Amino acid sequence: MINRQMKTFFLITLLIGALTVSAQDTEKNTISAIYQNALRSYESYNKLNELCTKAPGRLVGSKASELAIQILKAQIEKINPDTCWLQHYVTPSWRVKSPCQATVQVGTKTEALNVVNLGLSVSTPEGGITGEILEVRTLSAPDSLGSKVVKDKIVFFNRAMDNSKITTFEQYGGAIDQRAGGASKAAQYGAAGAIVRSLSTEHYDFPHTGVSRYKEGITKIPNISISTNDADKLSLINKQHPGVKVWIKSDTETIDSARTANIIAEIKGSKHPEKIILIGAHIDSWFNTPGAHDDGAGCEQMIDVFRLFRELNIKPENTIRLVLFMDEEMYQSGSKVYAESVGKEKKEHIVSIESDAGGLLPLGFGIEADNFVFNAIKKLTEPLFDYGIYKTTIGHGGTDIAPLKQFGIPLIGLTTNSQRYFEYHHSANDTVDQVSRREMQLGTAAIASLVYLIDRNGIK
Amino acid sequence: MINRQMKTFFLITLLIGALTVSAQDTEKNTISAIYQNALRSYESYNKLNELCTKAPGRLVGSKASELAIQILKAQIEKINPDTCWLQHYVTPSWRVKSPCQATVQVGTKTEALNVVNLGLSVSTPEGGITGEILEVRTLSAPDSLGSKVVKDKIVFFNRAMDNSKITTFEQYGGAIDQRAGGASKAAQYGAAGAIVRSLSTEHYDFPHTGVSRYKEGITKIPNISISTNDADKLSLINKQHPGVKVWIKSDTETIDSARTANIIAEIKGSKHPEKIILIGAHIDSWFNTPGAHDDGAGCEQMIDVFRLFRELNIKPENTIRLVLFMDEEMYQSGSKVYAESVGKEKKEHIVSIESDAGGLLPLGFGIEADNFVFNAIKKLTEPLFDYGIYKTTIGHGGTDIAPLKQFGIPLIGLTTNSQRYFEYHHSANDTVDQVSRREMQLGTAAIASLVYLIDRNGIK
Repeated sequence: MINRQMKTFFLITLLIGALTVSAQDTEKNTISAIYQNALRSYESYNKLNELCTKAPGRLVGSKASELAIQILKAQIEKINPDTCWLQHYVTPSWRVKSPCQATVQVGTKTEALNVVNLGLSVSTPEGGITGEILEVRTLSAPDSLGSKVVKDKIVFFNRAMDNSKITTFEQYGGAIDQRAGGASKAAQYGAAGAIVRSLSTEHYDFPHTGVSRYKEGITKIPNISISTNDADKLSLINKQHPGVKVWIKSDTETIDSARTANIIAEIKGSKHPEKIILIGAHIDSWFNTPGAHDDGAGCEQMIDVFRLFRELNIKPENTIRLVLFMDEEMYQSGSKVYAESVGKEKKEHIVSIESDAGGLLPLGFGIEADNFVFNAIKKLTEPLFDYGIYKTTIGHGGTDIAPLKQFGIPLIGLTTNSQRYFEYHHSANDTVDQVSRREMQLGTAAIASLVYLIDRNGIK
Repeated sequence: MINRQMKTFFLITLLIGALTVSAQDTEKNTISAIYQNALRSYESYNKLNELCTKAPGRLVGSKASELAIQILKAQIEKINPDTCWLQHYVTPSWRVKSPCQATVQVGTKTEALNVVNLGLSVSTPEGGITGEILEVRTLSAPDSLGSKVVKDKIVFFNRAMDNSKITTFEQYGGAIDQRAGGASKAAQYGAAGAIVRSLSTEHYDFPHTGVSRYKEGITKIPNISISTNDADKLSLINKQHPGVKVWIKSDTETIDSARTANIIAEIKGSKHPEKIILIGAHIDSWFNTPGAHDDGAGCEQMIDVFRLFRELNIKPENTIRLVLFMDEEMYQSGSKVYAESVGKEKKEHIVSIESDAGGLLPLGFGIEADNFVFNAIKKLTEPLFDYGIYKTTIGHGGTDIAPLKQFGIPLIGLTTNSQRYFEYHHSANDTVDQVSRREMQLGTAAIASLVYLIDRNGIK
């Protein structure tokens, strides 16, 4: 009897072993199939080209943003999801009526500067404004200098990003105060305008825009960004010719209510259709750029996750929901609208995953969750190590999915090689030819694999 | 007494602990200083620009290669090494007298194709040659088809690189047989010429060159490379119009003896000047390219390692020897000449390190050494994990340092993100603007840190 029991025990052990190995093999093979398909495919890259060529400058409320919604929705529908709909809403917006200009007057010579409006910047009078340059390196400089010095000046915030830092997002974080708060700080002491050094890691001619908010109750002054090359030039001219004057012309308007939308699509879960794995990116880009890395690539990666599931016939047990958010760049209105609907819908979101770090070489995932969930997700990414996914850390999930944290939904963001990102970010240089198809596809494959692994294994 | 002994014991333990921590701290601080300096500096990138602008197409024996030697030697001397000299030698070479051309005749329409000579290709008669296309996908196809089919044809080797592979070097390895041996195989069966699909990972208009050798005793036929876009076009035309003819014109010559040189420079070791840590890259590039990634970036990275040691006042205990090799691309003559001199010199080389995988994001090192040495080097790279160096594996050291293996010298090659590499490799597209300064500098810092760690800790 003991012998027969032992035999049965061994047989069961062997069987369990075989089943386990087989499940692991299935996972391994599926991940391999995902990567092979993604790396061979040109579909997503061609779609990115379509989006960026037909709808560059797709800031919320713009004609281009409406077109982008149409283009992306059509791209999604072509893949045959189970559902695809628009989540309409109305939001205030802002636009540049004609590109801003700036010149510096050196003796009789007028030199043009590479500038661009910062987001939400007000207009100058039609003839522009002229003022002496006041160059500073810190946001608080106007506080120390006071109205006597600052009044009527055009304050030039010229602190460069700290290039010695390994992570470019850290550099960005260390210099963004000037862009976000410079104009209000200068206006507080009577400045006529603000010029902010572009948040670029390199010396370039492309000016970079981005959001800048006016403090309530403070006079709104024109607020523009200057390319890093021209920031250096202007600084030098200002040293050589103290009291040199700059002329700025800005022509913008606010839009009270623009009708816009998020795009939502689903592949329904076969076992738990009511449980959602969310994958997202944002539709909008700044007005001055095709927005290929930010965030055209993210949108196309997420659409391509759907294509991969369909083409490889991977049937998810839970519902995969694709959300392309509107208006990440200015008000995050799309993300707020979506979060509100989640609050009402009461469907469980297992996780939310965002791609908004460019179509660059993926290195890992940044996770916002408790330790238990973090460790579970980190463990799931282990089979992706051979595909270069080695860096899964506690980190930023994503701006669009951030409001979902209130519901206890874990946030996951794709971490990419950030070294080149701020050569393109928010500038006319963010073009499709700066995106390597293979790098973008590796990001897609990493996300599709993670979605598949979470779907099959859960995170609890 | 026991108490006093215990106290002494604890004090000594604490002291050893403190010293150990202090040594670790010094290493950590030095590595941090190396990275910070490298990431801030534009010197190396400007030097790369100088090299590629003034001396593009610096194939061994060319005027550009002579100029490149001058430029690089001057760049090195500016950094004030202890010694810098040229290791002169004479080698055969080859050159393109005028760019090769190809057209395809479709009815009355003549379409130009994007082509380039493969290395060592012979000329056509002055009026070129015309022949029917025979498209094949394998190197052995002419063997199966035989002379009856192959004779007088222009054999078109059109197997694409297998894009589904993660490592692009693996794809390259899987398709290079056509470039290396296609012409000889075709000639064996009486073909008039050979056209080979470019070894590019993407659909591009840039044709890629590279070395191709003729088998001894076989008629040398003209041998050219066609861009991937035009390979697809030609294939389609050939399907639609069977028997379509192609015209090729090639104008090249061999050079019996060109006087050229390796560049060698040293920072002498303070303790063991007779022991050498070699760092190397190659000067030459193909005739059709500025050679920014291959291998201008490698040269400038290694020169910048010297700059970092000088600027940060890191005094090596062993001699750091910089060798910029001539002629990696065709005959590896510089590498052979250097290896011979090592055989005579009898100075111990601790390791040799090469950078020849482009100025792209560094991910680790590939090591050719026994397991003990491999593990020792891998262990040394641990502090570099936080800087993105996570992938130290048994792998390819480098073509220029390969002959040093016969002396038991461990070979180390910088491993980079290879995803973009074959968009540039051996083509006119390998330009400085395709090199990200930060990525190149991260490679420099990784190498400088490894040199420093090996210098201080050894590998045994």
